[in-house]
Amino acid sequence: MTDQMQHITLASRPNGAPVPDNFALETCAVPTPKDGEVLVRVHYMSLDPYMRGRMDDAKSYAAPVPIGGTMEGGGVGKVIQSKADGFEPGDYVFGMLGWATHAIQPAKMLRKIDPDIVPITTALGVLGMPGFTGWHGLMEYGRPKAGETLVVAAATGPVGSMVGQLAKSLGLRTVGIAGGADKCALATDTFGFDACLDHRAHDDARSLRAAVKQAAPDGIDIYFENVGGKVLEAVMPLMNPFGRIPVCGMISWYNAGGLGAGADAPMSAPALWRPILVNFLNVQGFIISNHWNQYPTFLTEVTPKVIRGDIKLVEDIAEGLENAPEAFIGLLQGRNVGKQIVKVI
Amino acid sequence: MTDQMQHITLASRPNGAPVPDNFALETCAVPTPKDGEVLVRVHYMSLDPYMRGRMDDAKSYAAPVPIGGTMEGGGVGKVIQSKADGFEPGDYVFGMLGWATHAIQPAKMLRKIDPDIVPITTALGVLGMPGFTGWHGLMEYGRPKAGETLVVAAATGPVGSMVGQLAKSLGLRTVGIAGGADKCALATDTFGFDACLDHRAHDDARSLRAAVKQAAPDGIDIYFENVGGKVLEAVMPLMNPFGRIPVCGMISWYNAGGLGAGADAPMSAPALWRPILVNFLNVQGFIISNHWNQYPTFLTEVTPKVIRGDIKLVEDIAEGLENAPEAFIGLLQGRNVGKQIVKVI
Repeated sequence: MTDQMQHITLASRPNGAPVPDNFALETCAVPTPKDGEVLVRVHYMSLDPYMRGRMDDAKSYAAPVPIGGTMEGGGVGKVIQSKADGFEPGDYVFGMLGWATHAIQPAKMLRKIDPDIVPITTALGVLGMPGFTGWHGLMEYGRPKAGETLVVAAATGPVGSMVGQLAKSLGLRTVGIAGGADKCALATDTFGFDACLDHRAHDDARSLRAAVKQAAPDGIDIYFENVGGKVLEAVMPLMNPFGRIPVCGMISWYNAGGLGAGADAPMSAPALWRPILVNFLNVQGFIISNHWNQYPTFLTEVTPKVIRGDIKLVEDIAEGLENAPEAFIGLLQGRNVGKQIVKVI
Repeated sequence: MTDQMQHITLASRPNGAPVPDNFALETCAVPTPKDGEVLVRVHYMSLDPYMRGRMDDAKSYAAPVPIGGTMEGGGVGKVIQSKADGFEPGDYVFGMLGWATHAIQPAKMLRKIDPDIVPITTALGVLGMPGFTGWHGLMEYGRPKAGETLVVAAATGPVGSMVGQLAKSLGLRTVGIAGGADKCALATDTFGFDACLDHRAHDDARSLRAAVKQAAPDGIDIYFENVGGKVLEAVMPLMNPFGRIPVCGMISWYNAGGLGAGADAPMSAPALWRPILVNFLNVQGFIISNHWNQYPTFLTEVTPKVIRGDIKLVEDIAEGLENAPEAFIGLLQGRNVGKQIVKVI
């Protein structure tokens, strides 16, 4: 065991889209756990769109990463030293381990995972925060009913693919939106979407709207909102009366510089609010960290589906901690295919 | 009984704010009821912001009034001829009688009202559609809790004053917004708002927001949305986590020409959508006509409060059917004080 570790810190706040210089790869001594703490060797770390928000100091649902602080994020790894009851070297755990090769965490912030049931990377995607987000948002706020039509963007991502597969299994017509023909093929062939539209083939919301209208001839009952921007503009006028819009993310706006900026959204505020009134829509923003009490129910319900292959997953694994910034920049541009993970060791 | 009647028709569709030329006062023969129908002499008719929507042919929750058609609206009056069981001449009724001195309606579309319990005009305001809208929106979607803060605009109108008084009686801090110092005094002195802000004293949303922030130092838990525009922009950044926004109207945008227009709303779409995500807000559009099954419950609950004076009402009564267009134009400009009614006879 080396006594040095690496971690990636926030070197500067991005002005719009993050660039490599916003990150710094640093080396320091591996810390020693105190009583009640556990030292973990990180095997895989997760990259997720919400991390873009942590890089700003704008008011949001979580405190920003301070300049010079280690980038936050979930990871899975193996316990290498424990000063806490219930954790032994060799145990696999999930925790908010950060963008790092090693992490110290209080035992209560770690969750043991069993590598014999499903691959440990699933704790970052299909059975982790993103999959849980899709399940909770769809079931709790989407209130799906057989025969209805659902639209979700980032359809091959870990949230969108969970939403689409669950909705399909419940008898809904599922229309995905994704970036590129390859992703659209993945959406229909692997994730079972009834149709998938390539948003890159449409220059503006109007053009995309015409395509969605064709793919959703009976209108849209549930729009699972995880991107904002052009897709939101395209679908709002197509929502059916009493439609539901769970909102878990607006990735297309994350680079817009926070509240007040709107260069990516030429549609007016009234145009995006009036349909709420006119079609009696329910729009529910949520962030999954407020709902962890539902996580055991999710695992109980969905783990067997993953084991049986009823819920499929696709992972995009970058190699090496040093490549995490580039992979994250790519994620925000939609260059990943499936759940973006970094293999740290 | 004269054999002539008057009614006001839609002469042309407005381009922006309605003008007198959009309406025509016409005379015709009083029709004769067929079997199952009732002829009503209209005593009072209601003017409501939703009627602006009926003047456009844009897609909305109800069909537009056709050019040359009688303007729609609720009214109360006395039966003068009946070919339906259960209705006798002299009965007072409420129905969608239109902008007219007389109306024929199928019996099942009329509701008898008892003039000995409360004044018949209350069927148009505090105990009619507007009051019911306020009650349903607040109780069902606002989910008020003692100690929380509620903001509502058009605070002296029949919806806003119902919302404010109910919320206050449930232990909430109530902040009204109204146009002019006189209305603000009415809101606090008569309707019991803890504070009321004059939106005319604030040139833009930012200035209004600073004032709301002072009046709602703990943030906003419920914003009852009935105006849109500047007020919505002012309050969105002040919403507390898990806040609720029932949406029953957006009067400030009604003259904007429907979807796509946004001259009144300089704030961007992302700025008005991101708070939904960041603060886990619930936004619920509704139109009260989908919820008439709750109306008896509303009447049972609220009528005694009106009789006891626990719920106060203010009416603004214009004289004569011929003055309805001018009164309606004034309503859209906020010139009325309290529930706008037209005394037809």
